[in-house]
Amino acid sequence: MNSYGKIFRITTFGESHGTAVGVIIDGCPAGLPIDINFIQAELDRRRPGQSKITTQRQEGDKVEVLSGIFEGKSQGTPITLAVWNEDQRSKDYSHIADKFRPSHADYTYQMKYGTRDYRGGGRSSARETLARVAAGAVAKQFLATLGVKITAYVSQVGHLQLENDYTKYNFEEIENNIVRCPEPSMAEQMIALIDETRKSRDTIGGVVTCVIQGTPVGLGEPAFDKLHAELGKAMLSINAVKGFEYGSGFEGVKMYGSQHNDLFYTSEDGSIRTKTNHSGGIQGGISNGEDIYFRVAFKPVATIMQDQQSVNEAGESVIVSGKGRHDPCVVPRAVPIVEAMAALVIADFYLRNKTTQK
Amino acid sequence: MNSYGKIFRITTFGESHGTAVGVIIDGCPAGLPIDINFIQAELDRRRPGQSKITTQRQEGDKVEVLSGIFEGKSQGTPITLAVWNEDQRSKDYSHIADKFRPSHADYTYQMKYGTRDYRGGGRSSARETLARVAAGAVAKQFLATLGVKITAYVSQVGHLQLENDYTKYNFEEIENNIVRCPEPSMAEQMIALIDETRKSRDTIGGVVTCVIQGTPVGLGEPAFDKLHAELGKAMLSINAVKGFEYGSGFEGVKMYGSQHNDLFYTSEDGSIRTKTNHSGGIQGGISNGEDIYFRVAFKPVATIMQDQQSVNEAGESVIVSGKGRHDPCVVPRAVPIVEAMAALVIADFYLRNKTTQK
Amino acid sequence: MNSYGKIFRITTFGESHGTAVGVIIDGCPAGLPIDINFIQAELDRRRPGQSKITTQRQEGDKVEVLSGIFEGKSQGTPITLAVWNEDQRSKDYSHIADKFRPSHADYTYQMKYGTRDYRGGGRSSARETLARVAAGAVAKQFLATLGVKITAYVSQVGHLQLENDYTKYNFEEIENNIVRCPEPSMAEQMIALIDETRKSRDTIGGVVTCVIQGTPVGLGEPAFDKLHAELGKAMLSINAVKGFEYGSGFEGVKMYGSQHNDLFYTSEDGSIRTKTNHSGGIQGGISNGEDIYFRVAFKPVATIMQDQQSVNEAGESVIVSGKGRHDPCVVPRAVPIVEAMAALVIADFYLRNKTTQK
Amino acid sequence: MNSYGKIFRITTFGESHGTAVGVIIDGCPAGLPIDINFIQAELDRRRPGQSKITTQRQEGDKVEVLSGIFEGKSQGTPITLAVWNEDQRSKDYSHIADKFRPSHADYTYQMKYGTRDYRGGGRSSARETLARVAAGAVAKQFLATLGVKITAYVSQVGHLQLENDYTKYNFEEIENNIVRCPEPSMAEQMIALIDETRKSRDTIGGVVTCVIQGTPVGLGEPAFDKLHAELGKAMLSINAVKGFEYGSGFEGVKMYGSQHNDLFYTSEDGSIRTKTNHSGGIQGGISNGEDIYFRVAFKPVATIMQDQQSVNEAGESVIVSGKGRHDPCVVPRAVPIVEAMAALVIADFYLRNKTTQK
Repeated sequence: MNSYGKIFRITTFGESHGTAVGVIIDGCPAGLPIDINFIQAELDRRRPGQSKITTQRQEGDKVEVLSGIFEGKSQGTPITLAVWNEDQRSKDYSHIADKFRPSHADYTYQMKYGTRDYRGGGRSSARETLARVAAGAVAKQFLATLGVKITAYVSQVGHLQLENDYTKYNFEEIENNIVRCPEPSMAEQMIALIDETRKSRDTIGGVVTCVIQGTPVGLGEPAFDKLHAELGKAMLSINAVKGFEYGSGFEGVKMYGSQHNDLFYTSEDGSIRTKTNHSGGIQGGISNGEDIYFRVAFKPVATIMQDQQSVNEAGESVIVSGKGRHDPCVVPRAVPIVEAMAALVIADFYLRNKTTQK
Repeated sequence: MNSYGKIFRITTFGESHGTAVGVIIDGCPAGLPIDINFIQAELDRRRPGQSKITTQRQEGDKVEVLSGIFEGKSQGTPITLAVWNEDQRSKDYSHIADKFRPSHADYTYQMKYGTRDYRGGGRSSARETLARVAAGAVAKQFLATLGVKITAYVSQVGHLQLENDYTKYNFEEIENNIVRCPEPSMAEQMIALIDETRKSRDTIGGVVTCVIQGTPVGLGEPAFDKLHAELGKAMLSINAVKGFEYGSGFEGVKMYGSQHNDLFYTSEDGSIRTKTNHSGGIQGGISNGEDIYFRVAFKPVATIMQDQQSVNEAGESVIVSGKGRHDPCVVPRAVPIVEAMAALVIADFYLRNKTTQK
Repeated sequence: MNSYGKIFRITTFGESHGTAVGVIIDGCPAGLPIDINFIQAELDRRRPGQSKITTQRQEGDKVEVLSGIFEGKSQGTPITLAVWNEDQRSKDYSHIADKFRPSHADYTYQMKYGTRDYRGGGRSSARETLARVAAGAVAKQFLATLGVKITAYVSQVGHLQLENDYTKYNFEEIENNIVRCPEPSMAEQMIALIDETRKSRDTIGGVVTCVIQGTPVGLGEPAFDKLHAELGKAMLSINAVKGFEYGSGFEGVKMYGSQHNDLFYTSEDGSIRTKTNHSGGIQGGISNGEDIYFRVAFKPVATIMQDQQSVNEAGESVIVSGKGRHDPCVVPRAVPIVEAMAALVIADFYLRNKTTQK
Repeated sequence: MNSYGKIFRITTFGESHGTAVGVIIDGCPAGLPIDINFIQAELDRRRPGQSKITTQRQEGDKVEVLSGIFEGKSQGTPITLAVWNEDQRSKDYSHIADKFRPSHADYTYQMKYGTRDYRGGGRSSARETLARVAAGAVAKQFLATLGVKITAYVSQVGHLQLENDYTKYNFEEIENNIVRCPEPSMAEQMIALIDETRKSRDTIGGVVTCVIQGTPVGLGEPAFDKLHAELGKAMLSINAVKGFEYGSGFEGVKMYGSQHNDLFYTSEDGSIRTKTNHSGGIQGGISNGEDIYFRVAFKPVATIMQDQQSVNEAGESVIVSGKGRHDPCVVPRAVPIVEAMAALVIADFYLRNKTTQK
């Protein structure tokens, strides 16, 4: 289904070239002041055409409120946000209508549904993620009242990789460069690599790291809805994601238990803390109050400006030619999407956790 | 909640030292012949005490059917499977009752619920996974009638790592050694490493690789319930898991789009296939008929046979001493758990997919 | 939550005087031809101002498609339908802003949420039901392809009551009169009673009877999601509904089992049928292929054109004066709403039933 | 599915003649003291063989706790309760194996699932309701800590009907007679009517009235999950129920709005109350703090001690003979079942309501 969350629950709608893309947020607590400008600002961070290393398509992506906000506050009723697609009928997509673009969802959608909106990928387009960013911007405003802060940044582009320890970086630097990397000299190298890739009509992958600070102890649930399991699902549900790891992640498997265990101690303010944080702020699936951090792997964008061999619906061999304006690397625009999904997960668990004790 | 799945839906129950651990399977199609011996055989693959590199605790873990199977077949009604805990009252746990074991769920459960069953980890114990294996064994029998085959194996222990290409290995070898690695010489090294780790009273991590073969095209859903997002959540919900990647995974981010894209062609039998499979059998969140494969990272087991610094509920500094018989490395016993969760995900999507076309 | 259905699932949004009222339909099977004109026609049956016995407010209620329909067909993706509210800012509601209208939801919303959109009842307004009618019109088109037909009519207004046996009436007559009663002479009396009630600045209740024909055997589920339990929930969720009964209903309690039991026989076409239908087409919560029929009780509309004693948010005694144009009796306009909810229930169970056998 | 509730969620399992019948309660808040004897006492109120007007089958129905309760308190983990079926293999059911009993679920289950456990109705047996009573007994203990009290009683048997105004009766009298009617002289008549019906080898229907006192304002949700819609679904999901009405119900349709509206006033203790309660304690789907009351119609039991015409699976005409010991009227034993379902609905909404405000 096109919904996510149990209490703070979103349902997204819209195709790349349909009338509108949007979201219903159901279960947002009543009485929350909502700043529409902040929602727009978050959408602008995701917007195409924002810099030379993103797609040059220009889309305004202006958000409109259809329901749920009255006198500047949430009412406990469904909040509907929508962005109208511009010029959605202007272009001719007939050349691609029956071809399956490599590593896109054309083939699988056609087989699953027996039909598909072939214009710009239809529902499978990453344009759907603007609905997530809009909803995430509401979740962020809710979390801000609780002191929770979510920060994502680009930690890898191709082979260019920051060290894994996020505490080494100044988060203030992230929005100071167009690739959204907190280390300025690495940012320059990444930008150069993406630009070079774009010029060679190719694309490249990357990694987004995300840090969640200020969460209370107790978010997440035993068994299946562990906090990191939901974070993983939320991240893997973003277009082009191939992997998720939190805390010590894949590297942690090389460690011994005696190295990996995070020892508890009582801090000066009386709170119980851990000396290290290989757990990534989550133990037994439940937040322990330390920083939550994780990494999300994005594959190289499937649309490349080159001719590729493929087949059409009849199974005949065809050439798919790259056209239009596309991202050479998805991670700079993925940063606000990762943050949005993290905010949605945390907001939902915060509300769920209200019901666990008598 | 303690449930997983939308149509083929399981709910697990039970604590490590309570009366029983078990599962209700709701939504299993009616008319499926169910072999209880196969369920038992799967439980035996997960059972403690099965080899020198697993915990030496001896538990019979005999499965009992409480409902839903009549004349050897599923009835469309809830199937309840239970395993009785043995000697659950025999041991004294008072020494650990108010202490928080490092990197366990003791602290987070206590904070979330204000109470906890401290005996052997209670609900947070990996003993819960036997309920998953039992349910997965039913899902596997359902999938077998559809030609779907799920195979997991140990691909890494500590720094000892198989190559990522699963097609190089003979799956018949997996159950021929106690570490469940398909490469016999690597298996020997892994066993030696685990044994050595055990002797030094420590633990070590590992990776389980899983391959799903024979799935139809069309499993998985757009937006949030992408096939790999659900697989990711299911895997991350297993105790001790720290990461998930499918297809090209984290390594794939280093590739260019022109290398990474899987080109379509029409095979001799007329079916549409891809020349490579960096997509891991999933495109746009939906299965494309190629093999699905993914890797799951397990951290070193938190219980070590050493004294560790910690705190108790009052926040006082205490020593937690390792006692009892525990696994030095979890991955050999995790293999059937990974398979079970994969089976549950695939079975659920298979049923969901029945409703997508008119 | 503002969602209904498990597979064919709708989420409605919008307040009486907000920007728009609408619905996302998630899970509609792909490939269904959708006639927008039919959706509009159904909305017109619910529209205010359609006759002298409904409210005289004039609202166009033109439906717009925001997503999910491409080249005239459903795509398996979320279908979003919206109706824009007209002149929603034109009126002054400050006189009612802090008063609790008797037998409305003003008080309960204020207490539950600590805030509310007081304009025309906000989210609690029956205007929400237009979203249900729009979604139901899609469900009806789906069901039409399966041969299922849903017919509702007014069977009681105040003390004026048709006999309970729906087979006595000619459904063709229903839309021939403004009260939607299949018996013309009774229709005249009902119209006169409503008109008289309106003139005395009062309101009156009524009953809608609904008949579902052509359902396959097997819809509905054991235990909690029995077909009639879901029908009951769906009907009771409509504004102003106070009761639901199906088959023999409340009168059936007076019968003996030997009278009430529906005896099976094999019909000439070889199908198994029942001689009577006190079961209302449902046995053990599952459709048996006979006609499904039920009755839905609607209370008199709470808004009356009279002064009423009440209190305000401060608990002070105030007078609430009836203003504006309101329905003297809700049942004529409720007929399409009852049909819509019935269609949504049946469509959902039809899809769910696809998963019950191997 | 076999689950009910969103936060306080139960899943029942078991067939009439399988190994066990039971329930998992997921989402019960942690730290609740749970009295097993109270659960048993509630089961004893539902137990067969308790009086001369119920079935004479003797079943102990002893409840056993399989998980979730530790040191006498709920742990926030799944609570599993089970009752073992006695002598489930002792009887020969082959004479009924392929026959469809009139107005039972035999035919619909067979058609839906292609198979069924024909022993005593299998899953469709009212024996499933013991799982509800067990779970409801936990919900009642939770609600007792909040001051909520739920009382049901028999208000009608056949044509013998109490007045609708529950305030006229002394609830203390309910358990003083075997029919559970609060009016002693009516109780005698009802008992006589049931006894007479039993002697004539027939069955008869009845009505259970339920009153919920002490609920806070704010339970229930807008749109689909209105409090009375969920109560309606919960009641209609009980075996043999044919109708549900709350507050003024079906009779209320005859009233004028000016009579039916419940006027607000401020009581001496400063709380806002209504002068009348035609709303049945629910306005706009949300509790307003007044007593909640509703009526539930039960049809005559389908099993009668007479020969009835029917068909078998092959469609051949057969005679079904009444055998065994069955209830001549279901309502005396339905009283605790109605209370249990009401408790489950209220407990769930109480927890859901915790999340509606910031």
